[in-house]
Amino acid sequence: LSLVRAEIAEQPEVLERMLAEEGGTIGAAAREIARRRPRYAVIAARGSSDNAARYAQHLLGRLVRMPVALATPSLHTLYHEPPRYTDGLVIGISQSGASPDIVAVLDEARRQGCVTVAVTNDTTSPLAGAASHVLALHAGEERSVAATKTYTASIAVLAALVASIAGDRARRSELQGMPEALARQLALGAELDEIVAVAAGWERLAVIGRGADYGTAFEAALKLKELTRIAAEAASPADFLHGPIAMVGDGFPVLGIAPPGPTAAGVRELLDVVRGRGGDTAVIGKGSGDELRLRLIAVPDWLSPLVAVVPAQQLAVGVAERLGVDVDNPFGLEKITRTT
Amino acid sequence: LSLVRAEIAEQPEVLERMLAEEGGTIGAAAREIARRRPRYAVIAARGSSDNAARYAQHLLGRLVRMPVALATPSLHTLYHEPPRYTDGLVIGISQSGASPDIVAVLDEARRQGCVTVAVTNDTTSPLAGAASHVLALHAGEERSVAATKTYTASIAVLAALVASIAGDRARRSELQGMPEALARQLALGAELDEIVAVAAGWERLAVIGRGADYGTAFEAALKLKELTRIAAEAASPADFLHGPIAMVGDGFPVLGIAPPGPTAAGVRELLDVVRGRGGDTAVIGKGSGDELRLRLIAVPDWLSPLVAVVPAQQLAVGVAERLGVDVDNPFGLEKITRTT
Repeated sequence: LSLVRAEIAEQPEVLERMLAEEGGTIGAAAREIARRRPRYAVIAARGSSDNAARYAQHLLGRLVRMPVALATPSLHTLYHEPPRYTDGLVIGISQSGASPDIVAVLDEARRQGCVTVAVTNDTTSPLAGAASHVLALHAGEERSVAATKTYTASIAVLAALVASIAGDRARRSELQGMPEALARQLALGAELDEIVAVAAGWERLAVIGRGADYGTAFEAALKLKELTRIAAEAASPADFLHGPIAMVGDGFPVLGIAPPGPTAAGVRELLDVVRGRGGDTAVIGKGSGDELRLRLIAVPDWLSPLVAVVPAQQLAVGVAERLGVDVDNPFGLEKITRTT
Repeated sequence: LSLVRAEIAEQPEVLERMLAEEGGTIGAAAREIARRRPRYAVIAARGSSDNAARYAQHLLGRLVRMPVALATPSLHTLYHEPPRYTDGLVIGISQSGASPDIVAVLDEARRQGCVTVAVTNDTTSPLAGAASHVLALHAGEERSVAATKTYTASIAVLAALVASIAGDRARRSELQGMPEALARQLALGAELDEIVAVAAGWERLAVIGRGADYGTAFEAALKLKELTRIAAEAASPADFLHGPIAMVGDGFPVLGIAPPGPTAAGVRELLDVVRGRGGDTAVIGKGSGDELRLRLIAVPDWLSPLVAVVPAQQLAVGVAERLGVDVDNPFGLEKITRTT
């Protein structure tokens, strides 16, 4: 078994461990945030962690009505004009906690006196050292280059944090059911042979998701780029209609992320437009007619990203295996990317 | 002459008209913003306007140190849980001012009592009606589907607004020189024959830019997608290194946006990595060796997006013409996209 297959399979137990062990730190961070009442949040992250940040942006808006900015590290590292984070909550997300640009944002925010939170798999990392609250992923070492278990663990930590800030016990308890849901979702991976065979022929792709699953679309596209070199572009249905839809003609493949919930209808409509232009559609969630479909286990819609990313991970690895890619070390990527 | 060629050529006079006529409204908006001291800004936009928003995000951080969030309209239109924009500045950018999702964000922000600003080419549009300050683009009707003159006009209005909030007269005066610089940049379009011939063979592409020109990279990629169907993905050098670089192998083309300034070295380094992997590079700005190069007129680096986008517009139209695309109505796109 490849490392990445093993790490994908570990996701339920990682989640279970994180939920069992991280309640105290999450509660402490949530209490300070609830007490200081930041007006907005800023999140610094790269790669898969940036896709987890997109989910946090959605959830902080939805559950605690907080506007969220994704950070612009270049203002810190290249322009030396960092923003004033007055009345802000600043969150850094990084598996390794080692990327200097992300650390620079947290360092500055702490210096300015903000509430700062690090979400990381390495509690001894520079990022952890820079933050006043450190939320650990408990994922164990991730050895495959493509992030999988640290992505779902990041999503889950952020979901727990936001539900705690909201003081929403019902949602906290829904989260407890997710390790078991994730295990059931993983078991559906055996159904993917047909779509893997088709996807092995894709060279370009659009991945469409919105709301809770906007970040899922970006993470699915990133896994496909990293593992298979498919030129996969992620967008919301609305953004895709404002121009990029031009690319879609005969045979152009589009993958929709459509778990049940408020965004499913809009993704479905977009896929119908794609089919009207002669494009080919596949869907994670509810499909229509003869469409390629990756089924999802039913979960509360605010937690759909935890299960919806799994078939995308399995699809990317399946295609990579079929293409003969070294799935644990694809295309000369390195595990830790230090950017400034 | 096509409409899009004519509209690209009109850009200097549009800029000149906007600067001559919009000083009063920009000053009034800047005064209210300086008086109310919002802690952060939220910008709602789609398509090319969203790329102008990326520039505004950079500039508000850099010149007035304000963190900027790009809005999540789905929280308004699908989840019915709009964020609280307390102490925020909320800006909507839309050529037509007609997209319901963007209007919904401004409506809600005004209802909450925020300072609201609309940047639009139609001062009778729903977006203009929703905002307390309306900044007009003065672009005249834009008839080609691909936005060009409304994009540079949006960039310039936002530059003027931020410089005014900062009370920076030197920068306001630098802006006055841009119509002439833009005219000189347009005149370099005759040099593009070689790169147009090469780019007509591209099916995939990465466009790399950062800081002031992060939005330029996205706008260049969008023009190429809309007009030529090239699967163009934009990223900062740092984001590109965190995964997407995997796509780059022999012959994979990467276009760098590298005007002189704090980001040029990082873009240059990324292009060198690309060449080390066997990829092909082209650059808008300073090139190296045998690289395809699109030259830029020298301008103050905070205003580089006004000139750096021009060769990208010319390249996209040139490739489209060569491929026989109907450049004014490419691939069934419509001029006004109303999304919710």
